[in-house]
Amino acid sequence: MPRYKLIIEYDGAAYAGWQRQDNGPSIQNALEEAASALDEAPVLVIGAGRTDAGVHATGQVAHLDLGKSIRAEKVRDAINAHLRPHSIAVLEAFDASPDFHARFDATARSYLYRIINRRADLALERNRAWRLAAPLDAAIMHEAAQALIGRHDFTTFRDANCQADTAVKTLREISVERHGDEIQVRTTARSFLHRQVRSMVGSLVEVGRGRESASWIGEILAAADRTRCGPVAPADGLYLTGVSYEPLKA
Amino acid sequence: MPRYKLIIEYDGAAYAGWQRQDNGPSIQNALEEAASALDEAPVLVIGAGRTDAGVHATGQVAHLDLGKSIRAEKVRDAINAHLRPHSIAVLEAFDASPDFHARFDATARSYLYRIINRRADLALERNRAWRLAAPLDAAIMHEAAQALIGRHDFTTFRDANCQADTAVKTLREISVERHGDEIQVRTTARSFLHRQVRSMVGSLVEVGRGRESASWIGEILAAADRTRCGPVAPADGLYLTGVSYEPLKA
Repeated sequence: MPRYKLIIEYDGAAYAGWQRQDNGPSIQNALEEAASALDEAPVLVIGAGRTDAGVHATGQVAHLDLGKSIRAEKVRDAINAHLRPHSIAVLEAFDASPDFHARFDATARSYLYRIINRRADLALERNRAWRLAAPLDAAIMHEAAQALIGRHDFTTFRDANCQADTAVKTLREISVERHGDEIQVRTTARSFLHRQVRSMVGSLVEVGRGRESASWIGEILAAADRTRCGPVAPADGLYLTGVSYEPLKA
Repeated sequence: MPRYKLIIEYDGAAYAGWQRQDNGPSIQNALEEAASALDEAPVLVIGAGRTDAGVHATGQVAHLDLGKSIRAEKVRDAINAHLRPHSIAVLEAFDASPDFHARFDATARSYLYRIINRRADLALERNRAWRLAAPLDAAIMHEAAQALIGRHDFTTFRDANCQADTAVKTLREISVERHGDEIQVRTTARSFLHRQVRSMVGSLVEVGRGRESASWIGEILAAADRTRCGPVAPADGLYLTGVSYEPLKA
């Protein structure tokens, strides 16, 4: 069966998350229904990252198999036509090798977290960023975040419901930058624990607003204790921006 | 009576436009209702630009009078509190001189028009940009647009319902730039005719997609004939980004 790789954008605000589930509409489900219109049998769509309710994507990756071979561009356009009026779009579709697996083959996932640092409520960016009125120092947040890079036990930044076998993960990159009233946190790892990015961002905000010092992030990481984590940042600001399948460099 | 100047952001998608009217909720009306909660009498809110249905703002300016003096920051925060759950936010409020008039004193208005040039439907940017699949050449659009700068009869780019006394206007700036798959048209003038920006953008797109040459924009401008205008660009992509009250240089 021909396999396709999809690059997907979505506004997560209206969904109960990526994964097919009973408590609300899921992005996976919407894609599977749209893709099934191209085939005689129900189509399974496997995503690289199972984003939570309210989390967005500009570069989610998924794969699917179809019963017959269709041009990749046609797959993209036909799924998009059947997706309407969902706020989900297939940006690109590619022919993939039959053994390509969007989730298991991924070697890096990248996320962006957007904070809008102002008094006024969000109008244009509502549900698309975390608004925080307290002035944040992005430079000290960036400095503090560097303690997270490398291989660590991330128990402190792991949700109680996380089902991963181990809390030991390797964080490859994390940066915090201010652009006007927006603060962008970008981070990359082979994989993240459940709510890890939002837990790290929420803790970095404690540093940025001056409640904790820059060295506190390293301290709570070393404690490997969930109760030491700052308040978890809301889903609205989180975007899965890309998934890489490049072999990792040593 | 103390007068205040407001800087306002809104998502125009849910509104029938800036101006108070009978055929749907208006942004002016939502602001007047919120501001009236601060005063004993109904409050009038006068905006610098009467944006159409679906048009957004990141820097609309308005003024209002209150019966008693309240700190400007308090005016901002209280209006925002009363605006919820509208997708309208007062970014800043300032004390203004009693003779300041948001509309008549404005010396320049700036607009941004966002085109997203791709095949896939918009998900995150739905209602916030114009998606066009046909590949657009932003450089030739920019070149063509330069013919619009200066003092001209803009009849070609004027809506049939425009109520301005004259179609002679002075366009101060217009630029077209590509950033990835997004094309941004930015333009500034003391004032614009009704649907002038969307008419200019729609015509520039005809050039960008290769249906017309760069010199065509100057030709249709010179014709001063509405029937020569390209298709009017949709409201979704248009943003009022700022209003200036600086004296114009000679």
